[in-house]
Amino acid sequence: MSLFRPHIAAMAGYTPGEQPQEPGYIKLNTNENAYPPSPLALEAIRRAASERLRLYPDPMANRFREAAGKALGLPADWILATNGSDEALTLLARACAGEGDLIVAPAPSYPLYETLARIQGCRFEHRAFAANGRLAADLGKGAKLTLVPNPNSPTGSCAPASDFVACAEHAGGIVVCDEAYADFAEEHCLALPGRTERIVVTRSMSKGYSLAGIRFGFVVAQPQVIKTLEKIKDSYNVDAISAAAAAAAIEDQQYHKDCVRRIRATRARLAAALAALGFEVAPSQANFLWARRQAPVEPIYQALKERKILIRLLRYPEYGEGLRITVGTDAEVDRLLEELRKLV
Amino acid sequence: MSLFRPHIAAMAGYTPGEQPQEPGYIKLNTNENAYPPSPLALEAIRRAASERLRLYPDPMANRFREAAGKALGLPADWILATNGSDEALTLLARACAGEGDLIVAPAPSYPLYETLARIQGCRFEHRAFAANGRLAADLGKGAKLTLVPNPNSPTGSCAPASDFVACAEHAGGIVVCDEAYADFAEEHCLALPGRTERIVVTRSMSKGYSLAGIRFGFVVAQPQVIKTLEKIKDSYNVDAISAAAAAAAIEDQQYHKDCVRRIRATRARLAAALAALGFEVAPSQANFLWARRQAPVEPIYQALKERKILIRLLRYPEYGEGLRITVGTDAEVDRLLEELRKLV
Repeated sequence: MSLFRPHIAAMAGYTPGEQPQEPGYIKLNTNENAYPPSPLALEAIRRAASERLRLYPDPMANRFREAAGKALGLPADWILATNGSDEALTLLARACAGEGDLIVAPAPSYPLYETLARIQGCRFEHRAFAANGRLAADLGKGAKLTLVPNPNSPTGSCAPASDFVACAEHAGGIVVCDEAYADFAEEHCLALPGRTERIVVTRSMSKGYSLAGIRFGFVVAQPQVIKTLEKIKDSYNVDAISAAAAAAAIEDQQYHKDCVRRIRATRARLAAALAALGFEVAPSQANFLWARRQAPVEPIYQALKERKILIRLLRYPEYGEGLRITVGTDAEVDRLLEELRKLV
Repeated sequence: MSLFRPHIAAMAGYTPGEQPQEPGYIKLNTNENAYPPSPLALEAIRRAASERLRLYPDPMANRFREAAGKALGLPADWILATNGSDEALTLLARACAGEGDLIVAPAPSYPLYETLARIQGCRFEHRAFAANGRLAADLGKGAKLTLVPNPNSPTGSCAPASDFVACAEHAGGIVVCDEAYADFAEEHCLALPGRTERIVVTRSMSKGYSLAGIRFGFVVAQPQVIKTLEKIKDSYNVDAISAAAAAAAIEDQQYHKDCVRRIRATRARLAAALAALGFEVAPSQANFLWARRQAPVEPIYQALKERKILIRLLRYPEYGEGLRITVGTDAEVDRLLEELRKLV
């Protein structure tokens, strides 16, 4: 008999994108920000390297909550700091959905959602997006948890806030608006938890704030929802250094907005260049582009990898394959295009 | 209807020890190390404060695994890095025990174990220690997961390795030897996973290595057990800075051993002084002492708190109350004893 729960023993784990630890790669495969973190965040890390690290951190990272609340116009008790937005999603799955319960996500979207459902022993369903990346009002029907990336990955599309409201009215439980990429979009849904406890927004400091290395995300929800997630999280789920860095980064809105502006400009240029090379490129509200074409794309992925340019090859049942390309710096994008012109 | 699973909505959360964020306290309540982290760990943090933080960390923290393996005489693939040893325990609960399954811990021990069981919707039982903190061979009978702190908290007692072997033979699943405090003990159980996949050891960098602030722990188990836990953990569960700091700290064994030696010396002195003040003090293999007496101890706890000295008042059903006092620096212990002499 296995020492593990049968569905855990049987399941496959999630495979994250390649993270080569050696330098020399142009890394356009996991949607990291093209620019370095705010100098104020790096300074906060250096300041945190002190004798005080022998002590436990603040269990609720209140200094971060206050900084984030101020930056985003939210009360601090509507915010829960998490060890990456991955932990936010894990906590929501553990809070809402047990063995045999249903978790739903639109397709194609973030493959991790299915893994989270499998870990919980839940049933999982992919349901189609409505046209143009809109959400069907009955997307979450019967589901204890409905997980929707907005902007979506891999397509980069955004559904309007009104779609989430309609979806939450018909869903069997909480609807999560996963805003990992919302910093690059024109709109966001941070106001929606104020309308209903059934909508929860998750955010990440990885992409918009160039801090994937520190693992920091947060939940925005009504205080009673935050309190419930607090019961489940590990006592000290975020560390003192990351919390200090995240607070400094979110306070430095000017730096943040400048990075976002540059990435959006490069995104427009890359989209046009990919289209000129014959790719079908979806309009993107995120820091990546989803490029498809008639011919197989794996040879392009492989040839670029040999040249030390990493992009993401993604395949979806019933939806096909494509290349998800992170919007890098202008120099990285120029190198990518130089190689792509030889390959297509 | 609640948006959350019924047992989650109904449960109370775990309350960690007080973590005042303002300075000025003598903090002897949550078993932090009396001494600062290794200077090499602090230097590693400063070095990690770089542009590279825009990138995701190594999902498996392999540099830490290799450093820890070298320090402890283990192959790297027997080690899983976790976000504090709390995450290690959470992963084991999620992997082994589902709704209605039984989790067991000896009593009195770490109250968090019951919370982990409640979150999973498990049944939970406290079962008595055998005499002198030994483990009954049938401690884990019928349990999918048996959680044993060794050294134990609050008593500071250690069970011999042979007890874990006997316990694992009769248990209904994995037996966890939670070695959060093993750095201060004369023996440890790191060799036991080599004898059976049914024994898993968890470790913490918080106490022995003065790094509670960075949240870093690890699991030692057979590689197939590590692989299963890897399926459940968040993709990037430990951050780049903490992993670098933890690797540097575990490489600096000389500094570590020197801190441990000093804490053991102070522990002996504090134990004798508490006994002289009329407390019943259990022999301790950890960096704390468990002090009981006939009269209620809450007035002592409160009076010390008013003097900005924090210790931990703990109460156990069927076992009574006591004061768990972290072994601080010699100066902190002198201050504590000065106040205690006025209070008893």
